[in-house]
Amino acid sequence: MTTLPSTVLAALPPDAWLLDDASRHVYGFDNSKRHGPVLGVALPSDEAQVQALVRACAAERTPVVIRGRGTATTGAAVPVAPSVVLSCERMQRIERIEIANRLAVVEPGVINGDLQKRLKAHGAFWPPDPTSAPYSTIGGNLACNAGGPRAVKYGACRDNVLGLRVVTGTGEITVTGSFTTKGAVGLDLTRLVVGAEGTLGVITAATLRLSPLPAATRALRALYASVEAAADAVGRLLGGPDTPCAIEFMDTKALDLVRSRVPGIAAEARALLMIEVDGSIDSIDATALAVRELALGDGCIGADAATNASDGELLWAARKALSPVLRSLAPRKINEDVVVPVMRLPALVSGVERLAQRHDLLIVCFGHAGNGNLHVNLLFDPANGDSRERANAALDELFDLVLALGGTLSGEHGIGLDKRPFVARAIDATSLHLMRQIKAAFDPFGIMNPGKGVS
Amino acid sequence: MTTLPSTVLAALPPDAWLLDDASRHVYGFDNSKRHGPVLGVALPSDEAQVQALVRACAAERTPVVIRGRGTATTGAAVPVAPSVVLSCERMQRIERIEIANRLAVVEPGVINGDLQKRLKAHGAFWPPDPTSAPYSTIGGNLACNAGGPRAVKYGACRDNVLGLRVVTGTGEITVTGSFTTKGAVGLDLTRLVVGAEGTLGVITAATLRLSPLPAATRALRALYASVEAAADAVGRLLGGPDTPCAIEFMDTKALDLVRSRVPGIAAEARALLMIEVDGSIDSIDATALAVRELALGDGCIGADAATNASDGELLWAARKALSPVLRSLAPRKINEDVVVPVMRLPALVSGVERLAQRHDLLIVCFGHAGNGNLHVNLLFDPANGDSRERANAALDELFDLVLALGGTLSGEHGIGLDKRPFVARAIDATSLHLMRQIKAAFDPFGIMNPGKGVS
Repeated sequence: MTTLPSTVLAALPPDAWLLDDASRHVYGFDNSKRHGPVLGVALPSDEAQVQALVRACAAERTPVVIRGRGTATTGAAVPVAPSVVLSCERMQRIERIEIANRLAVVEPGVINGDLQKRLKAHGAFWPPDPTSAPYSTIGGNLACNAGGPRAVKYGACRDNVLGLRVVTGTGEITVTGSFTTKGAVGLDLTRLVVGAEGTLGVITAATLRLSPLPAATRALRALYASVEAAADAVGRLLGGPDTPCAIEFMDTKALDLVRSRVPGIAAEARALLMIEVDGSIDSIDATALAVRELALGDGCIGADAATNASDGELLWAARKALSPVLRSLAPRKINEDVVVPVMRLPALVSGVERLAQRHDLLIVCFGHAGNGNLHVNLLFDPANGDSRERANAALDELFDLVLALGGTLSGEHGIGLDKRPFVARAIDATSLHLMRQIKAAFDPFGIMNPGKGVS
Repeated sequence: MTTLPSTVLAALPPDAWLLDDASRHVYGFDNSKRHGPVLGVALPSDEAQVQALVRACAAERTPVVIRGRGTATTGAAVPVAPSVVLSCERMQRIERIEIANRLAVVEPGVINGDLQKRLKAHGAFWPPDPTSAPYSTIGGNLACNAGGPRAVKYGACRDNVLGLRVVTGTGEITVTGSFTTKGAVGLDLTRLVVGAEGTLGVITAATLRLSPLPAATRALRALYASVEAAADAVGRLLGGPDTPCAIEFMDTKALDLVRSRVPGIAAEARALLMIEVDGSIDSIDATALAVRELALGDGCIGADAATNASDGELLWAARKALSPVLRSLAPRKINEDVVVPVMRLPALVSGVERLAQRHDLLIVCFGHAGNGNLHVNLLFDPANGDSRERANAALDELFDLVLALGGTLSGEHGIGLDKRPFVARAIDATSLHLMRQIKAAFDPFGIMNPGKGVS
């Protein structure tokens, strides 16, 4: 393996490097379970150190892979060539919280959950709420345009960032966006860098758009006789005046898996919606009632409304029981996060059922129905014959199905390594060419996370 | 003047051209009152015609200036070199409205107000609401990232568009974004084109993100003894759980102008906030009450709440009386739309007062306080000595003040021609260089609205 160039090593103080074999090994993984070669782990403390490091890497053409906490499931933080892994773990300062301006300025290594705790004391929150929020970083969230259940009401990362400081692939600093909630000066570099999976540069500070924390929430669990009936209910909810802050979905397979573990899931239920509304204490009951009316309708076989937070926790139990069960069913799981227009969800779910039959696989669907964003989980045991090949064949057909339904390949996980073979099906050649020219403008030497995203 | 190349002329059917002197004259203006040279006015009917036209112009290196209805105040639609003006007036189809998917697909020439009428019947709206909405186009709105009062709650154009079809400067078609409210595949070309002021390509279709139309609104007019007291109230409102759908501001000068025309503006009032909340019929009264509590406080000298829509209209009268009065005061008005972080509004307004004194000008401030976005109106009579020079000097100092306060030069009007001399103060050299490389990727021959924006 190539060794770390001495000029790169000299760009940071000795205590900002982890060079031992064990460190280089563990920083070569992410949550995709893939692994790649690490020349050294850099732990810069501030923007000046990031800049010095990237400049040295640019001069040596040494690849730089930026890392939050490695929770990505796509291989986005796994090097494909011998690389410096730039971990943001020493850049955890919350620089400013300005409630009246509805913004916070943070370094990329701040843990999402830590920021939320700080903001809660101010009556505010930052909307993106991936499942990994207790241990994933703001920088990592921004890199893959993370979402979560709240996105149906509050949007994903691109909808909740005002500006960035970025060290480009040449080691220059670009200050994008503004400290204001409106801006119409120049091209939007902010949203280019958000979702770029570390291929354009290193985010060294982010100005996040905050939302006021609602005083109250109410949960509602509705069961349906068919996926179509559940999708129709989602359509009614989205057409209504009160947007829920979560509209989560579980398909028949998912319900079968948790029925014995949580009470109240009727045998005839073929789909579940977990709905949450938020608002002021004065209005929450009326909102919950209005939303329940919309959730009821043809094919609804029950809708349990919580009247307080602890009842709400009970209702969420079915949704939350699912992930641990899935992990226990098969050694390997491909967790996709495809998106279709909401009214195409029934076509997606029935298409997935056909794929499961044809390829003899267990496939479980759940996720963020309000955005049409489903996590399609293909379960298999690599030790069991050709199950991996069957899973990959089903995946290939799944992506064709999603695109035929007017959808896209990823709602919140990104491309990483996993979806690179499918990008050219989702993005036309002209757009890909534009994206690659933009990549070249930010990173002319191609050192920023090479082999990832669309690059 | 150069003439229209025959290959460009041949790219469209004869009835898709206006070539007479009168047409070429009127299409050379926009609402900035500037004028530029027009080779011919092209009226394509569909994307194929746009593509044919742009390809021919690219081959001949003929500039193309895209035009909605010319309501921009910045010169964005005024050619600087002999150009083809591409008017979108024959591209007014609303292709799809899908309420359950919360999207509409429209052509660029659709009038904002026409779309809103269609959407209203479905219980939905598209948030951007510039004052020009009854006669400006969606394409024009997108080109300058238009906002309006509702942006404080619902965002501006970039926050409310899911995807685009764009003919680039080489005549190729790029399909950006998605038909879904979440997407994490590739770089965000959609938001690059929104706000690019026609410098990257021609939008031929836009997939807009819709919001549900609230069932009820309530207006509140609050008067304050100082700008500081009003800004503190804005901060309390933004820190509270219910975001108003409008927080409009008028300064002392503005109040003086309308006091004789509308009742109830106390002599001691130095600032006004016009606040509007929206929500469900069940919750609106509670929300209005909670918001009024936040509007009250130190320095508030009265807060009149409307209990129905017609009372609300009366309260809005002061804000709406202002623009006609301004037009009657002086022959010329420079209407800036600077933005500062909300809590810097008092520093901005007091700075403007100093500029007015120093340069002996009448300057009136009003606008969208909830976004920190103020329309600073510099009034002057060009026939009166050096008043134009004094206005320009004040403008120059205004921009320095805004940038020193952490703000930006435009919230919703864009750069156009007017702010080009100031762009390099607002955007760092690295960012400008990146923007120009992106421009070159979309438009290598430099034919798309040359001399505008950052290009």
